[in-house]
Amino acid sequence: MTVKQLSLPELADACGVLGVSAVGLWREPVAEYGLDATAKLMRAAGLTVTTLCRGGFLTAVDPHARVVALDDNRRAVDEAAALGTDTLVLVSGGLPPGSRDLHGARERIADALAELGPYARERGVRLAVEPLHPMYAADRCVVSTLGQALDLAERFPADQVGVCVDTYHVWWDDRAPAEIARAGAGGRLHAYQLADWTTPLPAGVLEGRGQLGDGSVDFGAWHARVAAAGYTGPVEVELFNAELWARDGREVLAETLARFREVG
Amino acid sequence: MTVKQLSLPELADACGVLGVSAVGLWREPVAEYGLDATAKLMRAAGLTVTTLCRGGFLTAVDPHARVVALDDNRRAVDEAAALGTDTLVLVSGGLPPGSRDLHGARERIADALAELGPYARERGVRLAVEPLHPMYAADRCVVSTLGQALDLAERFPADQVGVCVDTYHVWWDDRAPAEIARAGAGGRLHAYQLADWTTPLPAGVLEGRGQLGDGSVDFGAWHARVAAAGYTGPVEVELFNAELWARDGREVLAETLARFREVG
Repeated sequence: MTVKQLSLPELADACGVLGVSAVGLWREPVAEYGLDATAKLMRAAGLTVTTLCRGGFLTAVDPHARVVALDDNRRAVDEAAALGTDTLVLVSGGLPPGSRDLHGARERIADALAELGPYARERGVRLAVEPLHPMYAADRCVVSTLGQALDLAERFPADQVGVCVDTYHVWWDDRAPAEIARAGAGGRLHAYQLADWTTPLPAGVLEGRGQLGDGSVDFGAWHARVAAAGYTGPVEVELFNAELWARDGREVLAETLARFREVG
Repeated sequence: MTVKQLSLPELADACGVLGVSAVGLWREPVAEYGLDATAKLMRAAGLTVTTLCRGGFLTAVDPHARVVALDDNRRAVDEAAALGTDTLVLVSGGLPPGSRDLHGARERIADALAELGPYARERGVRLAVEPLHPMYAADRCVVSTLGQALDLAERFPADQVGVCVDTYHVWWDDRAPAEIARAGAGGRLHAYQLADWTTPLPAGVLEGRGQLGDGSVDFGAWHARVAAAGYTGPVEVELFNAELWARDGREVLAETLARFREVG
């Protein structure tokens, strides 16, 4: 998603040129290019798919909407399996229209995980609940802290449900370091993503994630915490950034790789 | 600040017409109208000043900048005392330019409170540390949760340093209800402010606080928590909202009062 201006073949080629051997994918471009075609493209390029983003949006109250959401999430699990990744990242969903019941919304996520967890496990896929920054609590994700994500995940076996830590979402939270240790101890640290925090935020606050090194995140400290928690998996860079998207994708990918090496 | 388009005399008059007997003031309009003149205006109108906003911005590293900030905060205490309010709200400040050290910034706030607390106490003024929403952590306030605010406040006597709870900043936090109880038990719940959470957020995320009832905040639940914590002080409505500021101030004040009664 950092270089969504590149088509998947362009991405695969650029990764090859730069020596990048693994990439996280989003469902929309995969669907556009075709699931089987994407899997084939990745294999041919020698690219490992680290995670698939994203399932989730599990907070609906309406029974029909819940059936639709669960069906869609089962398809996301199938897609993850087809792409050869063991991790599906979940963005849980915000408050339903007119609702002010955060607790109820979080409980409906738990209900959904109870159904999706075993389905995913059978297909070799783990669900990674991603806490999103509290500024998204109303309209995107009622799971706002790593503590909340773990409270949810720990109701289920660790090989079914874990968490995704994204520096953009947790960097401000003085409790997150302890929660990373908790996640690691429980075998639930399923994904680790990077983005920097830069201000001012743009309208809608969706497309202002900072290039690594441009903002307030102390990546060295977060890397050390994740490593101390036993995490040895891939490290993804996920920048939703309108300015980066407007530039040449190959150039942005090269810059991002250089920054990744600098901040580590 | 909800109706900053009104001059202080217009505000006092509008409050009189609507039967509003108490108002929170900000330092800038007070300075513009004159401190003594404002105090006289409020007394003549029979208006109690609930709190003065705001002191703070105490995170600078530079020694000269720290001296300037402490001087300014002592002046803010003096102004609060002159206006007859016992509460000065503090917005702690963000990260200094180029810094990524949230912990260090929070410790510098504690250092400043150690100097300001006794000064305020001698003048009959309590400091209220206000946690701001985590989306302001970098550039405005490194104190992002009520728990952090209380961790800071509890290093000092309760009659020197407490907290300010604003629904806009804490509504998403599942730990905030317990922290409100903690604040009440310690005699540190010094101010209570309301704003609703509406989306999409505007660019810069400063002027999008929602009119009461328009957003995701369950005010009845928060009122009950604050009441259960023993709070019997004033309830302020503080809406930073560019759309409300563009309208007739008396109309906005009347609407806000009506909404205040509806959501209570």
